[in-house]
Amino acid sequence: PACGRPEVDLGQPSDWLWQEIRAEARRDSDAEPALASFLYSTILAHGSLERALAFHLANKLSSSTLLGTQLFTIIADSFSADPDLWDAVKADICAVKDRDAACTSYSHCLLYFKGFLACQAYRVSHRLWNQGRIYMALTIQSRVSETFHVDFHPAARIGKGVLFDHATGVVVGETAQIGNNVSILHHVTLGGSGTLAKVRHPIVHDGVLIGAGATLLGPIVIGEGAKIGACSVVLTDVPPHTTAVGNPARLMGGKTNPTQLK
Amino acid sequence: PACGRPEVDLGQPSDWLWQEIRAEARRDSDAEPALASFLYSTILAHGSLERALAFHLANKLSSSTLLGTQLFTIIADSFSADPDLWDAVKADICAVKDRDAACTSYSHCLLYFKGFLACQAYRVSHRLWNQGRIYMALTIQSRVSETFHVDFHPAARIGKGVLFDHATGVVVGETAQIGNNVSILHHVTLGGSGTLAKVRHPIVHDGVLIGAGATLLGPIVIGEGAKIGACSVVLTDVPPHTTAVGNPARLMGGKTNPTQLK
Amino acid sequence: PACGRPEVDLGQPSDWLWQEIRAEARRDSDAEPALASFLYSTILAHGSLERALAFHLANKLSSSTLLGTQLFTIIADSFSADPDLWDAVKADICAVKDRDAACTSYSHCLLYFKGFLACQAYRVSHRLWNQGRIYMALTIQSRVSETFHVDFHPAARIGKGVLFDHATGVVVGETAQIGNNVSILHHVTLGGSGTLAKVRHPIVHDGVLIGAGATLLGPIVIGEGAKIGACSVVLTDVPPHTTAVGNPARLMGGKTNPTQLK
Repeated sequence: PACGRPEVDLGQPSDWLWQEIRAEARRDSDAEPALASFLYSTILAHGSLERALAFHLANKLSSSTLLGTQLFTIIADSFSADPDLWDAVKADICAVKDRDAACTSYSHCLLYFKGFLACQAYRVSHRLWNQGRIYMALTIQSRVSETFHVDFHPAARIGKGVLFDHATGVVVGETAQIGNNVSILHHVTLGGSGTLAKVRHPIVHDGVLIGAGATLLGPIVIGEGAKIGACSVVLTDVPPHTTAVGNPARLMGGKTNPTQLK
Repeated sequence: PACGRPEVDLGQPSDWLWQEIRAEARRDSDAEPALASFLYSTILAHGSLERALAFHLANKLSSSTLLGTQLFTIIADSFSADPDLWDAVKADICAVKDRDAACTSYSHCLLYFKGFLACQAYRVSHRLWNQGRIYMALTIQSRVSETFHVDFHPAARIGKGVLFDHATGVVVGETAQIGNNVSILHHVTLGGSGTLAKVRHPIVHDGVLIGAGATLLGPIVIGEGAKIGACSVVLTDVPPHTTAVGNPARLMGGKTNPTQLK
Repeated sequence: PACGRPEVDLGQPSDWLWQEIRAEARRDSDAEPALASFLYSTILAHGSLERALAFHLANKLSSSTLLGTQLFTIIADSFSADPDLWDAVKADICAVKDRDAACTSYSHCLLYFKGFLACQAYRVSHRLWNQGRIYMALTIQSRVSETFHVDFHPAARIGKGVLFDHATGVVVGETAQIGNNVSILHHVTLGGSGTLAKVRHPIVHDGVLIGAGATLLGPIVIGEGAKIGACSVVLTDVPPHTTAVGNPARLMGGKTNPTQLK
């Protein structure tokens, strides 16, 4: 399977990922009693990973004027009603665990990685947006920006198995598209360039890696497997399997494709 | 008028902007009952836009040790006592609605744009600073940095109709000046350069656009209508209507003024 | 002493720094009654600086599922049990007061500087990490990232008298090392470069200054007293007392060492 785990039915409430996360929570509770209450209420008290994550996100995103109970219902309903969305959530947990050297366990990602949490809240907001619940989608976008410091427009499209590492300051604009198995570091912007065209933000294909602080502007296409160096400013297309670095970015070729700037 | 609305008396409690925002809140309440309580308590329960915004900011900036009721009084008093400050607030709402393609309504800006909210809290802190209430001004600066991830020094000077888009990570130093109708993206720094001179931060004139991640350092002057590219590092003056891009920034000329680096 | 104060025993509960901070709190309470309750509960009610800072950090880092009282105990115990850690806290307060022109008093730093607060919470997490309390250390890292927008890995090593100015978006990776009297601006990354070596993040020696937005990647060494310009991308060693600027960074020499790129 995509994330290197045994081929089991991920859709069951008793799937291996949820059992693994519960085992981790029990182990960490035993090792650190001061966190037992938190781990119990956030993981062990719940009957499924869907409900545990909905509970955790609702707690994080609630405020004095936005009830956590309402958010819980909206988020849990989205997870249970949309198998495709839920598959993406699970693929993201696996992506963080597999690709981030600092991730120690699945529950570490589930509870503590603000890029992961922001992305799952975005997935809910995207579903609401597509259902015409524009204002609720924008409400979630705003709370995600306040809570996790990541600004995902609900209309943006983000694939599965995506890693947002560190995450502070990431901005993904309204018509941006991100493929599967993309890794994006903190301070990355997929922004507009002032065009009035229908698509005015970048399209990022599968397997791309975007370094910290890189700024990609306008309706450009980043080809599959491309790498964008830290703090690069990218205003033009980048071919597949090609590295782009610098301000403005120049193409450097890559291991499997020697495309270089003429 | 500056923001393209009919020429009406903006100073009245019954002004068109407040009526428009109330109409939006009623419409969004009807469409999304889960938000009705939030929209009622934050907008519809109040007799004026001044009090609605003061209530919302006080809720956001309060903490377990800083009472929202005290903040509400300080913010509402600043709005009602200082017509010039209040004109700037209204011009900022219009600027966001007019210049940010992702802004769907005035209430969307009022409730959800952290750059807008941070700027209005700054305006209150700037007034307190000028009144000699230094410590309260610094308290608000700190809470704004924690809540909205924007660090506006209370002594900085910011004009009217200013748009802070996305806003995460913006830093505006103590002696910086920002003119009217300026647009500033996220991660922008108007910082010091170590000089001990009285003015040690940039002066940004009317109508300037500063792209994401641009860093402007020292007592430099950015001329009216200039454009600063994303991630540029600007250490020297930029003439009016001129574009500066790169690290370090080079001048590129502009549509109405061909100034270029020799 | 390191931070320019009279040579007194900093280890006593009655040390000059604590007395100075209490005097500031009384002065600011008198001048701004709206803050008296906050200043009393956060500073004046406590018998020592250790307990005041532990109380303030616990308030900031607590959440609906993580009790402030538990955090207070963990943080206060770390401060009182580890004199070396506590010396570093005091050196950091002095560093902010001495080196940040915008810092008006010791209590201003203590209460309001999120770079300072994030660093002290990191110091506690680092101690827990070294004691094998990995999950509690990661819990604090996560809450610091959410609350102060700074991501310090608990295993990173940070010296004394360090200033994190503005602080939003700072990322310090797992094997990074920061010496004494280093100054780091906002949006700075000490990140990995994909190597699988044991040390995969930068080593920054004493007295280094790193400008806003600079990104340092990989197991590189930044020599004592070096200066890294804003938004520089540094992928190679920088000799002592040398300035590096640009993307990618080039060496510019320095006042006391003319090392330059050939």
